[in-house]
Amino acid sequence: MTSASTFDAQEFRKALGSFATGVAIITTRAADGSAVGLTVNSFNSVSLNPPLVLWSLAETAQSLPVFQTAQHWAVHILATDQEALSGRFAKRGLDKFAGLETDTGVGNVPLLKGCAARFQCRTAFQHQGGDHIIFIGEVTAFDRADNAPLVFHSGRYAHATRRDAPDAKPRDPYLSGSFKENFLGYLLGRSHFQFFGRLRPLLAEASLTDEQFYLLATLTLKPVMSEADIAIGMASMLGGKADAALGSLLQRGLIARLTGAQASYQLTERGGQCALKLITAAQEIEAQVLERMGAGESEALKTLLNRLLLAVDPAAPALWEPPAADRKLG
Amino acid sequence: MTSASTFDAQEFRKALGSFATGVAIITTRAADGSAVGLTVNSFNSVSLNPPLVLWSLAETAQSLPVFQTAQHWAVHILATDQEALSGRFAKRGLDKFAGLETDTGVGNVPLLKGCAARFQCRTAFQHQGGDHIIFIGEVTAFDRADNAPLVFHSGRYAHATRRDAPDAKPRDPYLSGSFKENFLGYLLGRSHFQFFGRLRPLLAEASLTDEQFYLLATLTLKPVMSEADIAIGMASMLGGKADAALGSLLQRGLIARLTGAQASYQLTERGGQCALKLITAAQEIEAQVLERMGAGESEALKTLLNRLLLAVDPAAPALWEPPAADRKLG
Repeated sequence: MTSASTFDAQEFRKALGSFATGVAIITTRAADGSAVGLTVNSFNSVSLNPPLVLWSLAETAQSLPVFQTAQHWAVHILATDQEALSGRFAKRGLDKFAGLETDTGVGNVPLLKGCAARFQCRTAFQHQGGDHIIFIGEVTAFDRADNAPLVFHSGRYAHATRRDAPDAKPRDPYLSGSFKENFLGYLLGRSHFQFFGRLRPLLAEASLTDEQFYLLATLTLKPVMSEADIAIGMASMLGGKADAALGSLLQRGLIARLTGAQASYQLTERGGQCALKLITAAQEIEAQVLERMGAGESEALKTLLNRLLLAVDPAAPALWEPPAADRKLG
Repeated sequence: MTSASTFDAQEFRKALGSFATGVAIITTRAADGSAVGLTVNSFNSVSLNPPLVLWSLAETAQSLPVFQTAQHWAVHILATDQEALSGRFAKRGLDKFAGLETDTGVGNVPLLKGCAARFQCRTAFQHQGGDHIIFIGEVTAFDRADNAPLVFHSGRYAHATRRDAPDAKPRDPYLSGSFKENFLGYLLGRSHFQFFGRLRPLLAEASLTDEQFYLLATLTLKPVMSEADIAIGMASMLGGKADAALGSLLQRGLIARLTGAQASYQLTERGGQCALKLITAAQEIEAQVLERMGAGESEALKTLLNRLLLAVDPAAPALWEPPAADRKLG
């Protein structure tokens, strides 16, 4: 254990940062009529009856005098898609409200929109707490949306993924009850195939095999691919069927072969149209699926799949930094 | 907005629950020498200099008198794998410490192991806050591990997934820079194929196609499969190649056909051995990959893939309930 005599502020912040929090914006109206607001993660509930909440503000904060005299302020619990708003209210000296549409609360307090929850408060107590002031407010009104939350942990924003209740039934109606369902290889394969299975009727209509589709779709992302690109980058997708797939696509005039130092391939106009039609259909399937999952969880899933890709191929460069863990909001 | 005169406790709790938190266990030593502890999510940091933290406790809590007289207590920020510990310390009347190995802190306070962070505190202030008492402690010592956190949101436990920094470079070294990389269909396919690609050399050694392997592996989970099971349940995995794969596996003596009202299939002893060897290899690959991702994120990924499977197939029964949102820790 690090003891008080030796511990430094950065290490202490890192340790505090291991407690995850939501992110809140506190707003009020200054005596001169200007709107004031800042981002904090020090919010918490205190009491149900009377309904009290608290948050704390550094004594060095520019807005401290305003909050010390304010009779009313509002707490906005941010939703997963409000990371930019959090960043905006975490900076000093901007006109943070410029261009924002607001509601007006009790005491003329500006209320932000699109939050997971909002609490309008009347100042109940203020307590000194070291280099911060703790504000305790009585909640006079609140509202709530069922949005996924913005989360802050170890100096970084995070997604929250609700865990299933321990007694949740097995989720795959086909294979029930086996713990092996939770094998990642199984989940990946089944998710991919179930997702892709919804596209297959369209591939059949276009007389394309899976591998031919993968080639067409990849050529829309990377318009010219050499044989080496295909052999190395797509080996796992094509599973030894690259030559057959390329041959058939060439023969049907969906791709063209460019000659040079090394043969490479690109889409023909017809191939591009064919790929576009299928990709549009895939995007529609995706939009339906993601809507059912919700914005928070689908973003979390994409983040994790990207991270999995790096973990599967550790030879790939480390493209993100370890958590900075030294930021603190508010 | 719900206003104070009309709002009920449950709605207010739900709104408060939209602020995500970590989970903490507070421990102390009672005057009679017994160890006391409880789970809360009302922890937060207050001040860096002096180092202060706070949490609050209901006036009705059994342990209130102990904490009101305690000079020392400790805060344990729980890690993602400590959900059971959280549950244990959230219940009343058990000997919560039975069988737990603890360290001993200042003031003989019991310290739990395996946490994301621990703070040893000396009581600095107590403030009345409605139906709760707010305890503010000065941190005299702390330690920290780099564990993923346990998160609480809307009355449920959750996983946190760190977001990439907005300026993170594209993650797939093969296709860089295209926003389309973030298409879920692409991520699923690529993750699956990259993962599966590491198993393919072993399949080649065993002279098995992908589809033959899927059949063998599925038969280890569901030991007898009828033709209908295969046709319906595995359609997306086999993509029209079921008959060829079954024929080849039968011919090689890896599966046997059972005759009855409807033909069905099971593994032979040789088939079982072959499947076991490959599954063991796949599990080793998985263990390596998940270790690189870390326990928190790999659990979150599995949870989300399970949820995706349901979202892809909305005809499947809704196997988990919407968030209860009415639980509050501590």
